[in-house]
Amino acid sequence: MASNTAGKVIKCRAPVCWGPNKGQTIVEIEVDPPQHEEVRVKIAANGVCRSDAHHLDGDSCDVNLKYPLILGHEASGVVESVGPGVTSVAPGDHVILLYCPQCLPGRECERCASPKTNACVNDNFNTTSTMRDGTSRFRHNGQTIYHYCGISTFSEYTVAREAQVAKVDPKAPLDLISLIGCCLGQGFGGAQHMAGVTPGSSCAIWGLGAIGLATALGCKDAGAKRIIAIDTNPDKFEFAKQFGCTEFLNPKDLDIPVQQYFQNQGGVDYTFECVGGNQMVTLRAAFESLAPWGTCIFSGVTKAHVELSIKPNMFLDGRTIRGSTYGGLKSRTGVQKLVNKFMAGDFPLEPFVTGRYAIDDIPKCFDLLRQGKACRSIIIYN
Amino acid sequence: MASNTAGKVIKCRAPVCWGPNKGQTIVEIEVDPPQHEEVRVKIAANGVCRSDAHHLDGDSCDVNLKYPLILGHEASGVVESVGPGVTSVAPGDHVILLYCPQCLPGRECERCASPKTNACVNDNFNTTSTMRDGTSRFRHNGQTIYHYCGISTFSEYTVAREAQVAKVDPKAPLDLISLIGCCLGQGFGGAQHMAGVTPGSSCAIWGLGAIGLATALGCKDAGAKRIIAIDTNPDKFEFAKQFGCTEFLNPKDLDIPVQQYFQNQGGVDYTFECVGGNQMVTLRAAFESLAPWGTCIFSGVTKAHVELSIKPNMFLDGRTIRGSTYGGLKSRTGVQKLVNKFMAGDFPLEPFVTGRYAIDDIPKCFDLLRQGKACRSIIIYN
Ligand SMILES: [Zn+2]
Ligand SMILES: [Zn+2]
Ligand SMILES: [Zn+2]
Ligand SMILES: [Zn+2]
Repeated sequence: MASNTAGKVIKCRAPVCWGPNKGQTIVEIEVDPPQHEEVRVKIAANGVCRSDAHHLDGDSCDVNLKYPLILGHEASGVVESVGPGVTSVAPGDHVILLYCPQCLPGRECERCASPKTNACVNDNFNTTSTMRDGTSRFRHNGQTIYHYCGISTFSEYTVAREAQVAKVDPKAPLDLISLIGCCLGQGFGGAQHMAGVTPGSSCAIWGLGAIGLATALGCKDAGAKRIIAIDTNPDKFEFAKQFGCTEFLNPKDLDIPVQQYFQNQGGVDYTFECVGGNQMVTLRAAFESLAPWGTCIFSGVTKAHVELSIKPNMFLDGRTIRGSTYGGLKSRTGVQKLVNKFMAGDFPLEPFVTGRYAIDDIPKCFDLLRQGKACRSIIIYN
Repeated sequence: MASNTAGKVIKCRAPVCWGPNKGQTIVEIEVDPPQHEEVRVKIAANGVCRSDAHHLDGDSCDVNLKYPLILGHEASGVVESVGPGVTSVAPGDHVILLYCPQCLPGRECERCASPKTNACVNDNFNTTSTMRDGTSRFRHNGQTIYHYCGISTFSEYTVAREAQVAKVDPKAPLDLISLIGCCLGQGFGGAQHMAGVTPGSSCAIWGLGAIGLATALGCKDAGAKRIIAIDTNPDKFEFAKQFGCTEFLNPKDLDIPVQQYFQNQGGVDYTFECVGGNQMVTLRAAFESLAPWGTCIFSGVTKAHVELSIKPNMFLDGRTIRGSTYGGLKSRTGVQKLVNKFMAGDFPLEPFVTGRYAIDDIPKCFDLLRQGKACRSIIIYN
């Protein structure tokens, strides 16, 4: 499918973030054609995730991004055109964008070739604000606008490296599968790939945001018997049942620490810290709630100076603590498997969706997220 | 094979530890016959391990033991007699004693029945100083002498629960295989069972004591390519080659922290903290030396108040930290497999042996250990 716009600069709209705490405005930008091994994508849907809010709010976990930039990293779209050397996608293909790259078969870096890791050597997650050649594909009134995670998916059109898009089943609903690009994969992969949840096991999840709920889906799909949701907001408990949670615990209702509550039962097989932030109280509680053979998964990003303090003696019975980016999943192949599992009816995505919005609603959607009123707002593009 | 002594009290010699910092003297004791599901063992050989020294030196990691007691937990022997209900061993059988119990087949606790853990529900490791009925089998001049880890292997004769002895190949040399009861299993299991060292991988081991060297044997047997030994005493490096170490690093020779040295190479696949003690400097260095997909194994025991401080952001690439007792191996079946591997020539044990000594030399052997002059002293019984 040839497009009228291939090889030309595209004018479209995008929310430009002018700097930490400097606001975000929806303006017209110019998007250059894709270069060697790059792909230009017309975005279909984009989930509003907390990681983006951190950058808007000047809480960027000590990452030095270049501004102004375009945020967004949880999205689906349709390939508009491809640059020279691109082999895995063609114009018209439905894709999910990948904030962690996965090198293409035959062109793999040593890490993408290894089953041990999903941390591609060519990752630019939070570390650069340009394409790999050091330049940008975005301009506004002649001013360079920078990239975010190499994908900047809040723009109506974006450019990404071929290694950062995954071709998916064109029958999959583009609005819902956008969530597979971040929260669903992080949580589901955390449960299945990093923790290796086993049938009949007990799982405890701290925090009922989108990653915590995606973790519950992964635990349920793996056959967990108990899926215990822990949150200080009991309003979320009824909602969380749709994701497979079987028990609910508000630490404020206990007169003992939550880790003591679980140790009194012999501990939990798998625990998941999905609250995030720089307070290590919940991560410590999740580790200390483990049964002797248990595994604790950490899914957050903290400021660089933050330290976790734990008792080394708790390792001696056989406890494990580990973390990952994107649930440890190779991004392209992981996304493709998850889309196929979703299409097979293995897990739902609609329950994540608080509402569907237009591009002009992006600032409002971030407000809803900050106020704790949204699980996932999805921006739908024309 | 019936013994003359079955059913009778046996008089023999044992080193009695009178209390923390109260010394240890070799005296005559009385050893009662084994009761229901208990076994009386004539000890053949006993390795002198640092864990025993901690109790002698009043550095018991906050465990409340009852004194006077008989130490020892790394030993082989021959079954002298068995109590009612014992089915897995008979008089004359060669055994290794197990400081972690493993319930017998058909009589398993829920943990011994699970592949997830080696932490038997009936473990009395460092927590009680008696047999399970609350009584002792040892007396000296009418005074009760207490047990240690349920096995008290420094005595010429000891009584242990059937769940704490493993029948082994009678052709195996009893002096050398005593080491399989503690250091060899802890290190070898740590490398293979807990870390899962893979062929061609890189491994770094902090501390060249017996557990560190046993870890090196496990890494070598698993096909590791690089086995890097880290110790502040370079005199040990030539010695460590016999255990498969391929590289040697004295942190004092570096002008950068050891973790930075390894990160400059991209990090290490598997790291092992085998220095022990309450300083968390080496455990932190081992964790921070990991490649993004790496696993760090902690093998030490600390005082209860000790805390480990680490950067949670280091988990995000996919790093793991975990620990275990006895390398995570089910004790009986683990010991039996390791004896068979030793008999097949898969790893040597003689290089651990600094010297062979008599029961009267036990105090001297602890002095050698404290002075860093012994890898393993083995006490040989008549
Ligand atoms: Zn996200
Ligand atoms: Zn790669
Ligand atoms: Zn020991
Ligand atoms: Zn058991």
